[in-house]
Amino acid sequence: MNLQNELTNREDIFSKYWLKYLQEGKPATLYNAARHLPMGGGKRLRPFLVMLSCESVFGDAEKTLPFGAALELMHNFTLVHDDIMDKSNLRRNVPAVHVKFGDPAAILAGDLLFARSFEAMHDLSVDCSFFKQLNRLLIQCILNICEGQQLDVEFEQRKIITEEEYTDMITRKTAALFRLAARGGAMIGNGSKDEISALTDYGLYLGLSFQIWDDYLDMSSDEETLGKDIGNDIRNGKKTLIAVHCLQNAKDEDKRVLDGVFGNRNASDDNVKRVFSLFKKMGSIDYARKTAIEYSKKAKNALAVLKDSEAKELLCDLADYSIKREK
Amino acid sequence: MNLQNELTNREDIFSKYWLKYLQEGKPATLYNAARHLPMGGGKRLRPFLVMLSCESVFGDAEKTLPFGAALELMHNFTLVHDDIMDKSNLRRNVPAVHVKFGDPAAILAGDLLFARSFEAMHDLSVDCSFFKQLNRLLIQCILNICEGQQLDVEFEQRKIITEEEYTDMITRKTAALFRLAARGGAMIGNGSKDEISALTDYGLYLGLSFQIWDDYLDMSSDEETLGKDIGNDIRNGKKTLIAVHCLQNAKDEDKRVLDGVFGNRNASDDNVKRVFSLFKKMGSIDYARKTAIEYSKKAKNALAVLKDSEAKELLCDLADYSIKREK
Repeated sequence: MNLQNELTNREDIFSKYWLKYLQEGKPATLYNAARHLPMGGGKRLRPFLVMLSCESVFGDAEKTLPFGAALELMHNFTLVHDDIMDKSNLRRNVPAVHVKFGDPAAILAGDLLFARSFEAMHDLSVDCSFFKQLNRLLIQCILNICEGQQLDVEFEQRKIITEEEYTDMITRKTAALFRLAARGGAMIGNGSKDEISALTDYGLYLGLSFQIWDDYLDMSSDEETLGKDIGNDIRNGKKTLIAVHCLQNAKDEDKRVLDGVFGNRNASDDNVKRVFSLFKKMGSIDYARKTAIEYSKKAKNALAVLKDSEAKELLCDLADYSIKREK
Repeated sequence: MNLQNELTNREDIFSKYWLKYLQEGKPATLYNAARHLPMGGGKRLRPFLVMLSCESVFGDAEKTLPFGAALELMHNFTLVHDDIMDKSNLRRNVPAVHVKFGDPAAILAGDLLFARSFEAMHDLSVDCSFFKQLNRLLIQCILNICEGQQLDVEFEQRKIITEEEYTDMITRKTAALFRLAARGGAMIGNGSKDEISALTDYGLYLGLSFQIWDDYLDMSSDEETLGKDIGNDIRNGKKTLIAVHCLQNAKDEDKRVLDGVFGNRNASDDNVKRVFSLFKKMGSIDYARKTAIEYSKKAKNALAVLKDSEAKELLCDLADYSIKREK
C-alpha cells in the first residue's frame, strides 16, 4: 500500500465522476472559463480526504463522490476568485482564469462553480434531513472561507499580526474545507459520534499543516534562487507564519530593516534579499517548519480512537506527506 | 386597495424578517460590504411577488418569507458582482460596493450574500423533499443568471444582436428570478399544477416587461437633458432592445452613423446625440415601449386561470405598474 498509488487510484475514480458538473455549455466563454482550473489538474486532496475518512469508519466511499465533488468545486471557485483579488497571474503553472478570460468571465465562472457545488450536493444518496445537515455545514464552511480570505487581504495592510490571528485566518481560509471533508466523509460513512469528532479534528490539523508547510516551501529556496513569488510576497507584506514570527521577534536594526522593506512595493531586490536573510537568521523559516510538523502530529494523534484499517494508515501517511512534500 | 400601500406593508414585514441574514460580523469590512446594498433600500419586488403569488392561490404568505429572503439575497449578490464587471460606480444613488469597499471585499461580499441565500432556504418550514425541489430551482436560476450576465457582457462587443438573442439574454439575466419568485410563491402556497404554471408564465412576462421598460426609461429623456448614463450606454455599445431594434433597421447613411458611433468609446457628444436622435427617428424607443406593454398584457392574461382575489388584482396592478412607472 502506497499513498501515491492510492491517491492516483481515487483521483481516477473521482475525475471520471465529477465531469458531469463540468460539461461544456453556452455561452461557451463562461463554461470554458469555469472548466479551465478544474480540468487543468490539481491533486483532488479534498475528495481523497472525504473518501479515506469514510473508509476509515468502514463506510462505502463511493457514496461520498457527490460530496467530494461539491467540496472540490467549492475549492476551485475560491481559487478563481482569490486569483482575481490577489492579482495572481499563474495557477498550477497555467494562466489564471481572469488572465485568460478576463475579470468579468472569471467572476462569473467562480459564481457558476459555486452554484455547481450546491448542485452536486443534490446527487447524494442520503436521507433528506441528513442532506440538509451536510448542506448547512457546506454553507457555514463557505462563510468561513470568505471571512478567511478577507482577513488575508486585510493582513497585508497591517504591520503586526499575532500568531493567533494568523492561525484563525488560515483555519477559516484553508483548514475549514479540509475539516469539512474529513467530517463529512465520516458522517456519510455512518461513523460514531467519537469517530466523527476525531476525524473533524484530524481534518482541521491536516489543513493547518498543509497550509503552513506551503508557507515554508515558498520560502525554503536559497538566496541565489530567490524566486519572483518570494519577492512579491515580501513586497506585498503577505502575512505567512514566517513573516508573522519574524515581525514579532525582530529587534532594533533588524526591526527597522523589516519595517522599511516588508510590505513596501518599491523595495529593491537587495532589500528583499536582506529580509529573506532575516527570516532565516531569526529562525522564522524553521519555526514554520516545526509548527507544520506539530500540526501533522496532532492530526495523527487525533486518529487514535479509530479502529485499525488501511484507510487509517493512509490518513496517517497523508499527515506525513503534508510535511514531507516538496511542492 | 392600493398597490403602493400593499407594497409598502409587505416591504415592512419583509425588511424586519430578513435582517437576520444581514447581521454585522467579523471581519467588519466584509460584513459591512455585504450589508451595504441590501440595507440601502430597494423595492423588494421579488419577495413582494413571492408573497402575492402565494396569496393568489390562497396560501399563507408568511411561510414564503425565507424564500423571498433567498431571492432578494441572490438578487443583491448579482448586483454587487455585476457592478464590478460593468464598472458601474453608482447603485441606487449611492457608491457601488466595489467603489466604497474595493474590488476584493466586493467580490467576497457577493460570495457571502450568495451563501446567505442558501442559508435562508433552510428556514423554510416545508417538508424536506419540497425543500430540495425549491433548492434545485434556485440553483438552476443562478446558472441562468450567470449565463445571462455573460451574454450581456459579450453582446457589447458584437455588432448585431437579434431580438431573439436579446430576449434570451434578459430572460436569463432578469426574468428568471421573477419567474422563480412567482413560481416558488405558488408552490409554497400549495397551488394547483395549472395555477403554478400560470404564475410561472406571469413571472416570466413580468420580468421581461420590467426589464424592457427599464431600457425604455433610460432612453426616454429628451436630447437636451441627455444624461451621462445614456451617453455611456451608447459609447459602450450596450445592447438594449432599443439599440437592437435600431441596429437591425437602420439603412444607408443612418447605418453608417450608427456603426461609427455606437460602441465607440471615444464618440463625441454630438455623435452620441445623433445616435440618440436616430433611435427616435427609427421608432426604436417607441418599439421598446410597445414591447414592454405587450409583455405586461401577456403577464395579465396568464392570470386568467386564477380565482378572483385581492392578490390577483394586485398582481394585475403590478403588471400595469411595470409599464407605468417613471423610475
